Amino acid sequence: MNALIIQKLLKCSLFRDFDSVELTKLLADYNTPLQIHSVDHLIMQRGDILDSLLILLTGRLQAQIQGLNGKTLRVEVLKDASPIASGILFSHDNRLPVSLYSETDVEILSIPKAAVLKLCHSSQSFMNGYFTDMGDKISLLAEKIRLYQFNTIRQKISGYLLGLIGARNLTTVKLLHSKEVLAEIMGVARPSLSREFSKLVQEGILEVNGKNVIILDCSRLQELLFED
Amino acid sequence: MNALIIQKLLKCSLFRDFDSVELTKLLADYNTPLQIHSVDHLIMQRGDILDSLLILLTGRLQAQIQGLNGKTLRVEVLKDASPIASGILFSHDNRLPVSLYSETDVEILSIPKAAVLKLCHSSQSFMNGYFTDMGDKISLLAEKIRLYQFNTIRQKISGYLLGLIGARNLTTVKLLHSKEVLAEIMGVARPSLSREFSKLVQEGILEVNGKNVIILDCSRLQELLFED
Repeated sequence: MNALIIQKLLKCSLFRDFDSVELTKLLADYNTPLQIHSVDHLIMQRGDILDSLLILLTGRLQAQIQGLNGKTLRVEVLKDASPIASGILFSHDNRLPVSLYSETDVEILSIPKAAVLKLCHSSQSFMNGYFTDMGDKISLLAEKIRLYQFNTIRQKISGYLLGLIGARNLTTVKLLHSKEVLAEIMGVARPSLSREFSKLVQEGILEVNGKNVIILDCSRLQELLFED
Repeated sequence: MNALIIQKLLKCSLFRDFDSVELTKLLADYNTPLQIHSVDHLIMQRGDILDSLLILLTGRLQAQIQGLNGKTLRVEVLKDASPIASGILFSHDNRLPVSLYSETDVEILSIPKAAVLKLCHSSQSFMNGYFTDMGDKISLLAEKIRLYQFNTIRQKISGYLLGLIGARNLTTVKLLHSKEVLAEIMGVARPSLSREFSKLVQEGILEVNGKNVIILDCSRLQELLFED
């Protein structure tokens, strides 16, 4: 494999514990094609079979589903040096659940399933990373489903924060996701989410420092859940 | 570990390629506590930390979330010889996303994360099985989210079947899930789902033979998506 591609692959956290010589050697026996697509193209369609691990080496992809009336819904944005639908590769139903659309020029490397299994055996860090990638996806989807029961953005934020507090009596919680991912989980636009957070700050309910949120008025936060 | 417990563990598909001597030896270095609970108890709460793989050896558990107004929603039913929340163990956020309630007397074995990693290294089949278990969970949650856009059970069935057909021009599709799991994915009661399937059969839109569904009138099925 081309040394430049190996360098790009090493930037992906899954591969962080390999060195370039070792990784080149491990992948030498496999066909690992590179796809290059330009901006604004449908790269893969919902239902396409995944039999390789796809790594987005450079660029940005949008995961979309077709809503009712043919309207396209953005589900997720993938950025360079990240695996694409890593979990689906091992599902009994290994069809891509979303369509992929290029937001920039993109380079995508395919690593066959057999090579992925070999990498798992060669590196504890790779295997752990792959498990964590899938586990994080499950947590994210489970949270997304839980937040569906709330109608407004205020309720969703309240439900999310109260979920972080859980049974513990915390007054400070750390957001588990960036505002961008949080907006995706809640199925709302990023600016609307920020606006609603600001309102909650202005109302003296929260204080926000980056990912740390101080809950100033927890009983008010709980009341929000039941407001229209 | 007790030979009887090993026998129960071997019934779980993850462990199918081990023999009892090998599995006993692999787990000998780890503490693998067994919990026994009687029927109708809350076993674990949403938010509890998972640092071991939990295997339901015998009995039946209900995964629940607390809905608004404190109402309990059944998310999933787990049956004996199956892993519990296998994906969450490897998530950055390794807190249980559901509460677990015993529908019968249950026996639950805890296998520490370090032992799970060792089992992965010892057995390709175990590692593959673990990946598949997580991958299937991701597929199921993604489909659940997709079907949220449909309001009625008829629409959900139609959306599900059209999803199976995909871009291909099939007239026969195989359901990927049992009716029980399908009802869980759609968030509807099992009898309501069966009733709606029967209606679609009566109306000459479908023919159902176990998991095989013959689509007799695909254009009618597509129209259903847009009906109220």
